[in-house]
Amino acid sequence: MDIPISQQYAIGIDIGGTNTKFGLVNHRGDISYHGAILTHKHEDVNDFINDLYEAILPAIEDNGGFSVIRGIGIGAPNGNIYKGTIEYAPNLKWKGIIPLADLIGKKFGVKARLTNDANAAAVGEMTYGSAKGMKDFIMITLGTGVGSGIVANGQLIYGHDGFAGELGHTIIIPDGRLHPGTGAHGSLEAYASATGVSRTALEFLDKDPGKPSLMRNYAREEIDARVVYDCAMEGDKMALDIYEYTGKILGLALANFVMFSSPEAIIFFGGMSKAGELLLKPTRETMEKNLLPIFRNKVKLIFSELKEADAAILGASALVWETSK
Amino acid sequence: MDIPISQQYAIGIDIGGTNTKFGLVNHRGDISYHGAILTHKHEDVNDFINDLYEAILPAIEDNGGFSVIRGIGIGAPNGNIYKGTIEYAPNLKWKGIIPLADLIGKKFGVKARLTNDANAAAVGEMTYGSAKGMKDFIMITLGTGVGSGIVANGQLIYGHDGFAGELGHTIIIPDGRLHPGTGAHGSLEAYASATGVSRTALEFLDKDPGKPSLMRNYAREEIDARVVYDCAMEGDKMALDIYEYTGKILGLALANFVMFSSPEAIIFFGGMSKAGELLLKPTRETMEKNLLPIFRNKVKLIFSELKEADAAILGASALVWETSK
Repeated sequence: MDIPISQQYAIGIDIGGTNTKFGLVNHRGDISYHGAILTHKHEDVNDFINDLYEAILPAIEDNGGFSVIRGIGIGAPNGNIYKGTIEYAPNLKWKGIIPLADLIGKKFGVKARLTNDANAAAVGEMTYGSAKGMKDFIMITLGTGVGSGIVANGQLIYGHDGFAGELGHTIIIPDGRLHPGTGAHGSLEAYASATGVSRTALEFLDKDPGKPSLMRNYAREEIDARVVYDCAMEGDKMALDIYEYTGKILGLALANFVMFSSPEAIIFFGGMSKAGELLLKPTRETMEKNLLPIFRNKVKLIFSELKEADAAILGASALVWETSK
Repeated sequence: MDIPISQQYAIGIDIGGTNTKFGLVNHRGDISYHGAILTHKHEDVNDFINDLYEAILPAIEDNGGFSVIRGIGIGAPNGNIYKGTIEYAPNLKWKGIIPLADLIGKKFGVKARLTNDANAAAVGEMTYGSAKGMKDFIMITLGTGVGSGIVANGQLIYGHDGFAGELGHTIIIPDGRLHPGTGAHGSLEAYASATGVSRTALEFLDKDPGKPSLMRNYAREEIDARVVYDCAMEGDKMALDIYEYTGKILGLALANFVMFSSPEAIIFFGGMSKAGELLLKPTRETMEKNLLPIFRNKVKLIFSELKEADAAILGASALVWETSK
């Protein structure tokens, strides 16, 4: 490529169950264009790719054409970096194994690389965000689900098959709450995701029907993590108890993660992390209590500094700079 | 060093609570000399080092003198590779932080390096044993305690402070059995160590006093993991149930470890692993049941091929070849 690196772009794509967001990113991590298309309206992956191409094309043309595009990086649920595939993603309509990196690479005529969405966010955080300069950290996304990306020795942990870092599915409460998506009992995601929190809210309301709560002003189907947050901010006791309960389970899980890889920090990311200290306080307390003394008061629990979509777009784009050196 | 590498030796030292074993190891992993001294009889670490020096000196002299010694590698409980220290090891008499690598290096006049004992065993296994060629595996030592060494991307995971891989202390049963050494409730080590198994045996005997068991032929203080094993081998139902119970907890723990780092294999090591399929069958079943489908039927559960003391001696010696290149 004859064009100097300072004038090149990577396309970063973050595929979620609902939206697919993308950006043109230069090598310093500046995102010069933001765009999005709906993921879930495309039953067929080829239609999705065609729409994505149409949506990105103007941005490419505005910025100098295909000659300045160094490559495409993609973050996707159940993404496998070794094979460039999405495999059996429960939240996507495309079933089985989808060779998405190949399909996108061919459509755009540009080299494409794909990884797990939470791993992409961890790379974004390490390259441009709160984890800059860290060699050992864990990124936890607390959204509809609970995702994770683990960095140790300055490298992302992929595992032998590319699927490492499914911390949301570790079992924290044996024989605990059923996760309807996986059939597991007591996994972290069943409690610490936004879905888990709304489930906890309904359980708390049902368990103690005489107890007043602002949440009773909402219809059952309206009660989501947002409602719990709003009620907690107004001082509602039951809503505050829900954060206490969630934080205790999350903290126990974090203690185990710390005793696994001894990270310098755990970085939170995703909608649920907006709860801030409300969630972090009980989480930190339970984590510290369950750690061996040698690990205590060492691990930082922090929030991502990047805008939510940006971490994954930046991380996905970082795959491009990393590989086409 | 002018002496060709084929004629050089590393001294590998494995420090345990009771014994300290050592060997002279060449770069192909042949141990040409085995020796041991008692660890626990030395209240003072300097006395220990003096005795160790006296014990190793003849081996050095027999093999060509100090000029052929490339370095010393040490595996020790709570060993910290970054600092060469042993820090707050509950099973050793030397309290606080002991700068053992420095002390030994000075006494011998040779460069010394120290790491955690389970990490040393993992390196031994990777360099010379069952994990040869593997880039992602977990080594679990099932002995008096439960130790672990984690390898990902072909590297040992040390964490930001050198203490990563304390999987024996992860909490598997929240509010479960008290670990008398750490004060934690429900940690893996409280169940899956030899100590844990004898504790389970006493609980089972007490819970069901009318139920016959060969274990009742032993005095309470005689009942250890060995007795449980012998009784199980004779078909004793209660002893078999103890393995079932232990395997279920170990299997649940392993499922969580797999969803963390997605290893190709988990390698067992230490006295308890002699139980073989007796322990492995319930362990494997519970692990598989608790894994996300993408991880199922992929992870090998295997036993170390190395003799118990050898893995740690070899692993410790490997530190020498690794660093003085």
